[in-house]
Amino acid sequence: MTYTLAILGCGVMGQALLSAIYNAPKAADETAAAFYPSKIITCNHDEPSAQQVTDLVETFDESPNGIKVESTYGHNVSAVEEASVVLLGTKPFLAEEVLNGVKSVIGGKLLISLAAGWTIDQLSQYTSTVCRVMTNTPAKYGYGCAVVSYSADVSKEQKPLVNELISQVGKYVELPEKNMDAATALVGSGPAFVLLMLESLMESGLKLGIPLQESKECAMKVLEGTVKMVEKSGAHPSVLKHQVCTPGGTTIAGLCVMEEKGVKSGIINGVEEAARVASQLGQKKK
Amino acid sequence: MTYTLAILGCGVMGQALLSAIYNAPKAADETAAAFYPSKIITCNHDEPSAQQVTDLVETFDESPNGIKVESTYGHNVSAVEEASVVLLGTKPFLAEEVLNGVKSVIGGKLLISLAAGWTIDQLSQYTSTVCRVMTNTPAKYGYGCAVVSYSADVSKEQKPLVNELISQVGKYVELPEKNMDAATALVGSGPAFVLLMLESLMESGLKLGIPLQESKECAMKVLEGTVKMVEKSGAHPSVLKHQVCTPGGTTIAGLCVMEEKGVKSGIINGVEEAARVASQLGQKKK
Amino acid sequence: MTYTLAILGCGVMGQALLSAIYNAPKAADETAAAFYPSKIITCNHDEPSAQQVTDLVETFDESPNGIKVESTYGHNVSAVEEASVVLLGTKPFLAEEVLNGVKSVIGGKLLISLAAGWTIDQLSQYTSTVCRVMTNTPAKYGYGCAVVSYSADVSKEQKPLVNELISQVGKYVELPEKNMDAATALVGSGPAFVLLMLESLMESGLKLGIPLQESKECAMKVLEGTVKMVEKSGAHPSVLKHQVCTPGGTTIAGLCVMEEKGVKSGIINGVEEAARVASQLGQKKK
Amino acid sequence: MTYTLAILGCGVMGQALLSAIYNAPKAADETAAAFYPSKIITCNHDEPSAQQVTDLVETFDESPNGIKVESTYGHNVSAVEEASVVLLGTKPFLAEEVLNGVKSVIGGKLLISLAAGWTIDQLSQYTSTVCRVMTNTPAKYGYGCAVVSYSADVSKEQKPLVNELISQVGKYVELPEKNMDAATALVGSGPAFVLLMLESLMESGLKLGIPLQESKECAMKVLEGTVKMVEKSGAHPSVLKHQVCTPGGTTIAGLCVMEEKGVKSGIINGVEEAARVASQLGQKKK
Repeated sequence: MTYTLAILGCGVMGQALLSAIYNAPKAADETAAAFYPSKIITCNHDEPSAQQVTDLVETFDESPNGIKVESTYGHNVSAVEEASVVLLGTKPFLAEEVLNGVKSVIGGKLLISLAAGWTIDQLSQYTSTVCRVMTNTPAKYGYGCAVVSYSADVSKEQKPLVNELISQVGKYVELPEKNMDAATALVGSGPAFVLLMLESLMESGLKLGIPLQESKECAMKVLEGTVKMVEKSGAHPSVLKHQVCTPGGTTIAGLCVMEEKGVKSGIINGVEEAARVASQLGQKKK
Repeated sequence: MTYTLAILGCGVMGQALLSAIYNAPKAADETAAAFYPSKIITCNHDEPSAQQVTDLVETFDESPNGIKVESTYGHNVSAVEEASVVLLGTKPFLAEEVLNGVKSVIGGKLLISLAAGWTIDQLSQYTSTVCRVMTNTPAKYGYGCAVVSYSADVSKEQKPLVNELISQVGKYVELPEKNMDAATALVGSGPAFVLLMLESLMESGLKLGIPLQESKECAMKVLEGTVKMVEKSGAHPSVLKHQVCTPGGTTIAGLCVMEEKGVKSGIINGVEEAARVASQLGQKKK
Repeated sequence: MTYTLAILGCGVMGQALLSAIYNAPKAADETAAAFYPSKIITCNHDEPSAQQVTDLVETFDESPNGIKVESTYGHNVSAVEEASVVLLGTKPFLAEEVLNGVKSVIGGKLLISLAAGWTIDQLSQYTSTVCRVMTNTPAKYGYGCAVVSYSADVSKEQKPLVNELISQVGKYVELPEKNMDAATALVGSGPAFVLLMLESLMESGLKLGIPLQESKECAMKVLEGTVKMVEKSGAHPSVLKHQVCTPGGTTIAGLCVMEEKGVKSGIINGVEEAARVASQLGQKKK
Repeated sequence: MTYTLAILGCGVMGQALLSAIYNAPKAADETAAAFYPSKIITCNHDEPSAQQVTDLVETFDESPNGIKVESTYGHNVSAVEEASVVLLGTKPFLAEEVLNGVKSVIGGKLLISLAAGWTIDQLSQYTSTVCRVMTNTPAKYGYGCAVVSYSADVSKEQKPLVNELISQVGKYVELPEKNMDAATALVGSGPAFVLLMLESLMESGLKLGIPLQESKECAMKVLEGTVKMVEKSGAHPSVLKHQVCTPGGTTIAGLCVMEEKGVKSGIINGVEEAARVASQLGQKKK
């Protein structure tokens, strides 16, 4: 079964998905192969942005799954008409205008929305099979995390297709829509919080006399290496944390100061605030 | 040029290095090939621990660089005599006894010490070519970070060999010994601080209603993905941080709460405390 | 092998050990039986306190291990002369006077000291086989915890005897003497800190409208039941902690407030302060 | 008088009660014997979970009170019809569907509900004799605490039966329903708060140089031993607390730091927050 995928609004995130899906390694079997479109139509709002997509695609080799790309602008209706899966990649404040523009043809199509704040109810005014995705900036580098919620009409058979496409840019995590504000805070804003932590470790090294570049390299490798250790060991973070603590040593001393300064609760309060604002912004849009 | 590497004290970290060096992919060229030993002699203190190393090696396939392993106990002197490079993997409090045991034969060998707190001065009583390494627990999974300082007598030619061996378990960062207490805090204790951050993100998700397993998966991927984004983009963390911040959005709201709660200063104070204790412990040992 | 045990200073703690050892269930085999004295001589400083011990012993049934008790006062020298194991139960400030009183006969005996603050060096002026015990008030009810450090001369064969006797009043934990100030804080003072926690939980129930008695019963059972859960499951406390946390539920909400209010660091700082004062008091005594 | 007990939803907590009641020691007299069912019918939603119960029961010896077990799935109506006491062990969000499924036959039965958040009013739509139970995770190990509230129709004669059954998994405490949110916080979430305290004591020991395993053992024994001391002595915690305080000693020094850092108020605020969220969640369900 091959199908056409239309990308409405092929900007930063749209192009990240386009290149990840286009360049995905050859599907392992027929079932997986069926999840890949034979054709992707990218829809931008003007010629320069469409040209940007064309130039990007020219840098690609042959798609391992034989995908063809047609870069267009001003042809949203015909693109959506031809497609059976539509990826909404526009900025949230442009989404209404773009969706209304294809209202006559989008009914019955599977709509994958990256537009932050747009609820399944709101998207379901256009088509009943909707999945709402909250991803983040690391997706541009294929290291994203994407939380996905579905409308009731999305069948069990359609979910693996969404999973296969979205997983090309990062980790796919399905959650009910009630968790979307939390996902916005933890996954959407999360990278900024981690960057704050990275800066803190960098500045610690700097303050202690390690040059900036080495401080940054060490901080980055410690962050990445520690997550890999959790992943590979499967152990609970606290179990691993205590394994690092030599009795009376440097580690437990540092941890106790961080506990005392409320690092953990500061992070938790920050993520909570982000979720609160996310739900507030959601209210305003209704 | 082939040589023999002796590992004095082949415990957790010694075995991590043994398996990483033994299983390292085939060296790209002759220069790199010369950095690999033709033979590794592991030295443990009793039969059971030596048997553990033998059992580990039996799980390996053929070494891509043709390395042979001889697992021994109670033969430190003959092993060091035969070796030209000696890796000290014992616990710090056992190092003195082990080094004194081979004092007669270790002179002139290149000594790579993993023993936390042992200074280059102290190690130089045994041989003048010394390099002091501070690594961390992710090294067990090949995702470590290793800060290395050298004694004056280590030649420019010898450093690439140390770099090649140590890089098998993680990122190699050369720093002067004056930075070693800071490295102990940032790299040695760092994983525990990152685990505290991971727990904080996990508990944030949990508090906001995301189930534990998904909270953990999202938190881990956001941490890893963000570091990859910094790595691939080469951008300054603050540049990337502000790119995530939609004006008046969730991210900047969360960041401001974290700043207000002193998350950054809490982390920095914690790392500083760890470095202070590291230098204190260093004083006690002199 | 049977032997005589002399208890120098049979006050609250001395009597707790006397009744626990006397009433210990029949030893499982000969090896264990050999750890029990055939005779215990209790030494008090005056007639009333000696009578108190006599009255206590009269409340006992036959000792399952056939132990006889002789309650004395003013006969320390003859008691220590006859004994091969001496238990020092006096108040720390009386210990010097009592020990000096038996200096002529205590040499070569195994001295078990409960006198807080008395170091192995100080005790070794009287006999070279010394073990220093830090226990706590729950020992009076057989639910104590006892940290034990030994002088170098105590043989491997003697340690099981000390273990068997001390375990009658609680958990036996061997640690090097350098940990004794920490043990004083965690084990010696620990019950007071737990009583503070119990009061806090009690007052929480009270504040939330639960009557005092039920608040106390619930708080006590939750404290005890949780420790049993850790014991029986063998799991790390954090693993169990997160299992209790329903996403977005009451538990994670309460934990986050406790983190924010610095409960953990407050407890850690308190135990550290206790250890600091313990070491200070130790200095003063030298 | 013998009766049949139906367990609707025999998951973790249902199985804890099943095994505790089935394996309870032989009732002391006829009155107590009458509290035990002659037959328990466990009702699960599918074959694998029913099989899990069957496998569990096969590990049991003969029931000291002669209880038989019938493990079923998909037969809720016939099970409830045959039973006179019904234990609701499903997850709260499944309770409505399960109760509606047996609405025709549950009238007049004694319903014991473990479903957190379900009020007596809501449960009384199904049968007028209702008791609402808030228990906790230590119940899985027989060391739980269970707060029980009754509807007005539950007779004085029925309460001892509930008491006997529930006490098999822990301490039975009867309270009016108005205390249920407080009980949710103190008893339901309580174990997580105690685990935070245990971690704090563990990390104190670790920071002061005691190895992790011994720090954990000492912390656990001090927690358990102190509660036993309160239980056995019957004394007020503050009375016992001050008994531990040697004038100018380590304990009072530690306590003062904990008071200064607001440990008690931090714990109280945390429990209050948990109760606040419990009542909020209760509101949402109405």
